[in-house]
Amino acid sequence: MTKSIDVRNPRTGKFDYVIIPPPPKLLAQLCNRLRRSQVRWQQIGIEGRVEALQEWKQAILAGRDRLTEALVNDTGRLSVSELEIDSFISNIDRWCRLAPELLQETAKNTSIPFIALQQTSVPYPLVGIISPWNLPLLLSTIDAIPALLAGCAVVVKPSKNAPRFVAPLISTINAVPQLRDVFTFVEGSGETGTALIDHVDLICFTGSTNTGRKIGELAAKKFIPALLELGGKDPAIVLGSANLDLATSAILWGSVVNTGQSCLSLERIYVAESIFEKFVAQLVAKAQKVKLAHPTLESGEIGPIISEKQAAAISDHLLDAIEKGAVIHCGGKVEELGGGWWCRPTVLTRVNHSMKVMTEETFGPIMPVMPFSNIEEAIELANDSIYGLSAAVFAQPEELAIEVAQRIDAGAISINDAGLTSIMYEGEKNSFKLSGLGGSRMGAAGLKRFMRKKAFLIKTNSANDPWWFENS
Amino acid sequence: MTKSIDVRNPRTGKFDYVIIPPPPKLLAQLCNRLRRSQVRWQQIGIEGRVEALQEWKQAILAGRDRLTEALVNDTGRLSVSELEIDSFISNIDRWCRLAPELLQETAKNTSIPFIALQQTSVPYPLVGIISPWNLPLLLSTIDAIPALLAGCAVVVKPSKNAPRFVAPLISTINAVPQLRDVFTFVEGSGETGTALIDHVDLICFTGSTNTGRKIGELAAKKFIPALLELGGKDPAIVLGSANLDLATSAILWGSVVNTGQSCLSLERIYVAESIFEKFVAQLVAKAQKVKLAHPTLESGEIGPIISEKQAAAISDHLLDAIEKGAVIHCGGKVEELGGGWWCRPTVLTRVNHSMKVMTEETFGPIMPVMPFSNIEEAIELANDSIYGLSAAVFAQPEELAIEVAQRIDAGAISINDAGLTSIMYEGEKNSFKLSGLGGSRMGAAGLKRFMRKKAFLIKTNSANDPWWFENS
Repeated sequence: MTKSIDVRNPRTGKFDYVIIPPPPKLLAQLCNRLRRSQVRWQQIGIEGRVEALQEWKQAILAGRDRLTEALVNDTGRLSVSELEIDSFISNIDRWCRLAPELLQETAKNTSIPFIALQQTSVPYPLVGIISPWNLPLLLSTIDAIPALLAGCAVVVKPSKNAPRFVAPLISTINAVPQLRDVFTFVEGSGETGTALIDHVDLICFTGSTNTGRKIGELAAKKFIPALLELGGKDPAIVLGSANLDLATSAILWGSVVNTGQSCLSLERIYVAESIFEKFVAQLVAKAQKVKLAHPTLESGEIGPIISEKQAAAISDHLLDAIEKGAVIHCGGKVEELGGGWWCRPTVLTRVNHSMKVMTEETFGPIMPVMPFSNIEEAIELANDSIYGLSAAVFAQPEELAIEVAQRIDAGAISINDAGLTSIMYEGEKNSFKLSGLGGSRMGAAGLKRFMRKKAFLIKTNSANDPWWFENS
Repeated sequence: MTKSIDVRNPRTGKFDYVIIPPPPKLLAQLCNRLRRSQVRWQQIGIEGRVEALQEWKQAILAGRDRLTEALVNDTGRLSVSELEIDSFISNIDRWCRLAPELLQETAKNTSIPFIALQQTSVPYPLVGIISPWNLPLLLSTIDAIPALLAGCAVVVKPSKNAPRFVAPLISTINAVPQLRDVFTFVEGSGETGTALIDHVDLICFTGSTNTGRKIGELAAKKFIPALLELGGKDPAIVLGSANLDLATSAILWGSVVNTGQSCLSLERIYVAESIFEKFVAQLVAKAQKVKLAHPTLESGEIGPIISEKQAAAISDHLLDAIEKGAVIHCGGKVEELGGGWWCRPTVLTRVNHSMKVMTEETFGPIMPVMPFSNIEEAIELANDSIYGLSAAVFAQPEELAIEVAQRIDAGAISINDAGLTSIMYEGEKNSFKLSGLGGSRMGAAGLKRFMRKKAFLIKTNSANDPWWFENS
């Protein structure tokens, strides 16, 4: 009944790894076991859980080389893998630092003199996480860490496209006895993810909008909360007053890092007419300096495209744009090198919103640049999208940029830089439109969304009568 | 295509009122108009919105007599209708007092020296509310008031069982020009409610778990948040140390107020063996003093059952219990008086969890009392339910009661009193199990859940390089 799944290596194109999804009965048993162990995990309190996560961190540091190697094989890239591990570790530290205060609660007096209020928060017993391939380690743990500190047990179903990091990661988890009982990974495809929803009390999903909608519907049927972090088509707006050198560098990075395989990649660039020519020239010059990480990992910055399916999608968007009149300034095609699929940083102009490259998520290092004649038009173009994840605005003074940002329908907007949410997790943000649903992953809500609030309302006077009789 | 709906009067049984659901096209137009007007409503700021709501309050006070009369005809009861209007007005004042501070946001420094954070909150443009018949005015406005102050436009679809209050309420809304453009009611059955989901950005539903599940699924398909406030089967636990006189008075009130037609009615009463006999005797004695509000509104405290369907459900639960061996101490049947359906406060013993009266929501003035031999057993019984809305614990000292409350799977637990959430709205609480989904209606979250967070992440140093270059 359970079929193994062959996993392709994005650099070589070879299927050199195998995962085996758990049979349904085993998955159910595993989830039951996690749920039972959660009781103790909650009881040890936040101090005990912080201690366990700090032990885990030590195990991760000790096993870092194996983890890095696996991640590099999963994704075909070196520096982003190192960055992923750094962010992962700093997430553990950050939440361990913040959680104790976030979980503290005290009794309060209320506006009604004879009632006192005491609040507590109760973790969802078992949290399920379905995570994507684009930042496999970071995005499989970004919600797991706060959920664990909140007191939940956690089971992760990572993407079948990048599962090699799981084995070394599980080794580090298993090195911590208390953690091992409440935190694990199961491997498989969408089928396993769907099955998981039946066993958990809350489901987190990071991935495509199409799959996210389905998961939201399944969660509603199962009557559990779904926290959905989905696709984006993030716009950048560059006003005439922007620092051009800064804007081109930041936008280049924001578009091509991780080969553009990031939900918060900049995928649409709107530039004031007055500086359009200069902007494009500078962006192209900088883009041409960015190299592919081929033939070796150290050859350049741009890693391979994860899969044939993604390569085909990027290619489709490019061909559609060219057919409709777009002009390629650099890059411009998906090529096969050594068995992997690659795409150089690509700058396009003469683009418009009839093209897929301006409306659908491309997930590649593609920078379509479009001029605008005034701010109203820029905002209209930026908001002309089914997505509303994040955005970037470049302008001087800063206040003008913020004014523009106020009018963009997106949850996080970088001002005079790109993708700042990828390094600064303190700002609460919700997704707009089809980019997601559920509480903010960032800020204090990132932990609190794994807990339910309980209120104890205490009649404090000693009179025999309940409030009803006193008040009627 | 649009059929009018005849509405039954719960005291007379006569169909003496008619509502006309809007045709689909009109509903769409109405929602579009609200959505357009919301832009200005958001722009006038919290001061402007508070002013409009205070004007509304004056209009309500001026029209209070008409509103009371309509509510009395809707529900067949007088004092609860007065209480509803009082609570409604105090909700307006409470949120007008709290909202300005809740909406205040300031720029913050972050842990990264070159990034500043500015947070804003953006209202969901159009909020839909589907409200129930049991407290028709209170529950159609309890979420509308904070949503309006948050800056949303609001459209309410109240229950077809109790719609008479709508016309006088709309008069008060129409007296405030700014409010009238962003707040209205549409009448109809479930069909109109379902149609509404297609036009709004967030849907609130208060009502049965069955309907709530369906609305949650429809909202997931539509990809909008659903805030679901559903059924309950609230338990009371009375330990041997409880103040008996207080406990019997509070539980009686908590069970029979509003004829038991309240989601947070106490519907299961677990009493320590040691005081069981005394408890039952005292509860029965007090229950027998409570009178029906028949033949006149002033004849007693217990109003009619809203509908034939609800009367049949209560009857069914009672017959099922009697058949399975329950003993009736007072009340015990549903009777027809003057065309309405009535039920006297009913105390049952020899009950167990095989009976509907202990497992399904009864929504009547029924108090099944069951003994327990120790605290573990009491908690197990209390948690043996598909619901987890609220509960009550009676014990001395207070700390012991809170310890028990910690272990009950419910969002709000009254300590040494009943139903305190109906007068004290400051405690944040989430629903457990099938009692609901979505952010807390109570506490600050009751307003914040109508807004999405936006984060502006501002690069504050003047260096030309984006962070990526500074950090790699």
